[in-house]
Amino acid sequence: MKLTYGVHRALQQYADRQAIASGTRQTSFRQLASRVSRLAAVLQDLGVQHEARVALLASNSDRYLEYYLATWWAGAVANPVNTRWSPAEIAYSLNDSGTELLIVDEGHCHLLPAIHGHITGAHLRVAFFDDGSCPPDLFDLEALLGSAAPISDADRQDGDLAVIFYTGGTTGAPKGVMLTHGNLWASAMSRYATVPAVPGAKAIHVAPFFHVAGAGRLISHYLAGGSALAVPAFRPPQVIEAIARHGISEIVLVPSMLQLLLSDSSFDSEKLSSLRRIFYGGSPIGEALLDSALQLLPKVELIQSYGMTETSPLITMNPHDNHVGEGRKTGRHRSAGRAVLGVDLRIVDSQGHVAAVGTSGEIVVRGANVMQGYWGLPEQTSHALRHGWLHTGDVGYLDADGYLFVQDRLKDMIITGGENVYSAEVENVILQHPAVESCAVIGLPDVVWGERVHAAIVVKPGHEASQEEIQAFCRQHIAGYKCPKTVSAVPLLPMSNVGKVLKASLREAHLRAESNRGPQERAS
Amino acid sequence: MKLTYGVHRALQQYADRQAIASGTRQTSFRQLASRVSRLAAVLQDLGVQHEARVALLASNSDRYLEYYLATWWAGAVANPVNTRWSPAEIAYSLNDSGTELLIVDEGHCHLLPAIHGHITGAHLRVAFFDDGSCPPDLFDLEALLGSAAPISDADRQDGDLAVIFYTGGTTGAPKGVMLTHGNLWASAMSRYATVPAVPGAKAIHVAPFFHVAGAGRLISHYLAGGSALAVPAFRPPQVIEAIARHGISEIVLVPSMLQLLLSDSSFDSEKLSSLRRIFYGGSPIGEALLDSALQLLPKVELIQSYGMTETSPLITMNPHDNHVGEGRKTGRHRSAGRAVLGVDLRIVDSQGHVAAVGTSGEIVVRGANVMQGYWGLPEQTSHALRHGWLHTGDVGYLDADGYLFVQDRLKDMIITGGENVYSAEVENVILQHPAVESCAVIGLPDVVWGERVHAAIVVKPGHEASQEEIQAFCRQHIAGYKCPKTVSAVPLLPMSNVGKVLKASLREAHLRAESNRGPQERAS
Repeated sequence: MKLTYGVHRALQQYADRQAIASGTRQTSFRQLASRVSRLAAVLQDLGVQHEARVALLASNSDRYLEYYLATWWAGAVANPVNTRWSPAEIAYSLNDSGTELLIVDEGHCHLLPAIHGHITGAHLRVAFFDDGSCPPDLFDLEALLGSAAPISDADRQDGDLAVIFYTGGTTGAPKGVMLTHGNLWASAMSRYATVPAVPGAKAIHVAPFFHVAGAGRLISHYLAGGSALAVPAFRPPQVIEAIARHGISEIVLVPSMLQLLLSDSSFDSEKLSSLRRIFYGGSPIGEALLDSALQLLPKVELIQSYGMTETSPLITMNPHDNHVGEGRKTGRHRSAGRAVLGVDLRIVDSQGHVAAVGTSGEIVVRGANVMQGYWGLPEQTSHALRHGWLHTGDVGYLDADGYLFVQDRLKDMIITGGENVYSAEVENVILQHPAVESCAVIGLPDVVWGERVHAAIVVKPGHEASQEEIQAFCRQHIAGYKCPKTVSAVPLLPMSNVGKVLKASLREAHLRAESNRGPQERAS
Repeated sequence: MKLTYGVHRALQQYADRQAIASGTRQTSFRQLASRVSRLAAVLQDLGVQHEARVALLASNSDRYLEYYLATWWAGAVANPVNTRWSPAEIAYSLNDSGTELLIVDEGHCHLLPAIHGHITGAHLRVAFFDDGSCPPDLFDLEALLGSAAPISDADRQDGDLAVIFYTGGTTGAPKGVMLTHGNLWASAMSRYATVPAVPGAKAIHVAPFFHVAGAGRLISHYLAGGSALAVPAFRPPQVIEAIARHGISEIVLVPSMLQLLLSDSSFDSEKLSSLRRIFYGGSPIGEALLDSALQLLPKVELIQSYGMTETSPLITMNPHDNHVGEGRKTGRHRSAGRAVLGVDLRIVDSQGHVAAVGTSGEIVVRGANVMQGYWGLPEQTSHALRHGWLHTGDVGYLDADGYLFVQDRLKDMIITGGENVYSAEVENVILQHPAVESCAVIGLPDVVWGERVHAAIVVKPGHEASQEEIQAFCRQHIAGYKCPKTVSAVPLLPMSNVGKVLKASLREAHLRAESNRGPQERAS
């Protein structure tokens, strides 16, 4: 089903319900339909044709939903930009996807000169979409929208490309994950067939809309006729105030955000009394955090989701039942839950054979939610989708009731605060530092971030390199969340006999050293 | 998604849960998987290849689910046979679909000689699938299954044909509605995204599995991991006993069945205390019946579904809220509800333009649930699916909140007790009677059946034809439910100036005459 379906359905069934709010502005579905059908006209007037890529570099707001819907209404493909990336990384995704139109909000205009320096194509046009005044050299979408006549929906089909989400790549360069209308639709339907939508639900969206987690939730919530509140950044006091003011019933978080929310000095159970469901993902929830959440928010259900960009994103869900009482006693709160209805999940060994219950192997997935592939990377696509199954790169096992326990990642990747960081990308940057002989980037357990990026470096003889210097060097090249939070100098890296760094040994050695020192020394 | 997905999912997540019960026999999902994978092997051994049509002529039982799943597991297409049809009608559907294997249960073996008399192809093989002893000239599926080794699932895809459901045709001959795995899957997902599945639900299936209404419910219930009880026929005392004995929580009915259930002398609210949901369809519920149901079964939710074979079958659902309190005051219990999530619904005028709110027109539908077409009838298919929308042939309007009110049928069709009867088919039979000059078959309102088939006939000069004689004549040619329940002799039929019978006028004249006589005289 096309993702604009929700607009047509809303006009027929609940046109005057609130679709989305942002700051003090509220937009009904009727207003949303009007703006989307006119914004689509503006996009086409700016030369956007079917299948053209349209990027948005912006914080969460009501306009983000309008951007997605208008892009699809015009028959085009959305390329939402990670705002945490460096200008070079942003330009890479624009160049690689052949984006023709880049839309920016006021808060990101200052990045344009630096981005332009890396743009290789001649055709990139830039438009401004925000409340403030438009810089003179940009197209002003609000102004154009005001005088545009609505156009008909391009009526995209299941197999048509809807979004390219750029994620870090195992070999360094980011990869564009191609998701169709049918992929994102299937994931939304799997979600609701597994954990039903609550009529009248009001969701606050703090997860960024440029990520599949935030976007997938935004899209599925809008499709089911829910009301949304978009907030530009995750700041606990503002989030708590917004929940209270808007009577929010649902929130999507990574555990590190939940930790920050519950431990914030402005936290007040009363203010969160409208909250009924916390959807969290990125990692299972720690025992202490779970205890706090259950104690501080006794009316709230905790629901875990496990997934990835390549699966639009849902693979499994773990309902609240497993977080309390008998469910918790069985340890199922430490699992990622079970495959949602519509997703086919297996654990396979290195030969591709199905692993027995309780036996670890790679998690592979099949279903209408699985991506079409990586943009422009047919070899990496066929490798990821070999034998008709998406190979997630995650290692886990299933228990006898189909509960998935995720144990490790085959890909050399760190998940920190919900963001994927590929070690290779960070290592490539650090190796450019003149004082570094060799290095290895690993993830170490972290109470707040789930994992933190750690770099072990071997310094060249006669050189010096402090943690601060390596961090500052990284920040010049890559997004802040990818930069190592800690750096250690080591005399040499543990190597296999084929010259590959033994990261598991390295990680163990660091964990042993840290546990000897105690946590207070580690916190930096 | 392939419809066998539910078997794989069950093996992973809830293998030992009851899948289906029939009589005193209970089958777990693990046993179901074992039987299905071996029955599929037997079908292939009997020559059934991918895309081959496999028919079943049987009453509801656990074997019906096994038949559907094994047919798909083997890569073939199910052609479930309407047991109410005459041997000639059954043979028509077998001939038309090119069915290669006909499976029968014990209760329908006696029809085989008469069916064989009408079979035109040389390749029909017949197999027996039941508890009793197999007739000597048939393949014994239970015996073969006992010694078969399981095969792998054929892994059908969304676009692969799953079922051909034969329904009455507007021009007389039945038409085979082609539904794919993706069609039936989409309808199940739309159902659950609109009215969530209840974990642990136990459904009793009294609607025949050869109809899309019964089959769609069976399939969606199994996909979500529900437990089913199959009963061979709708007999109120047995249904009431079965609900009590098995602790049934859900039932699907047409209003006429609900009426029979509530007014049965064996009715006892206590015995139905496990019942939580009544799904009904075929027509809205009458005020008196609704009052009885709410009073006699106060813990039960009433949920209406509107749909048809061509839409796999769901188009709209009307939740319980609209049957009570404020919902009922607004009159929404007389609507068919609103489009389910995933179905695109419009009202169009005769030029195909969208009708305004409150304006009547033809109901047209689009979505992944819409059939591929009519088997072997490309012209009727393109006509039904013109401009990309399924033209339902039903007339209705939408209110401002998207509630659909079904008013009439463009097709000359009667729905009696949930069965579609095309007037032309019945008229073609009656016209063969030597005493009949001309005739018109119409539907008249009926408390029990929703509509009843009525024939108005003009008798040839010098001839006579009683109601009983016309009924007996019809029963020789067509299914009992298609035969007129009442027959009236009229001096002439009201005709338009192009020689078409004015059925609306005829219906009005009959209703006027009946209301003058009073209902007690009408009941025959």
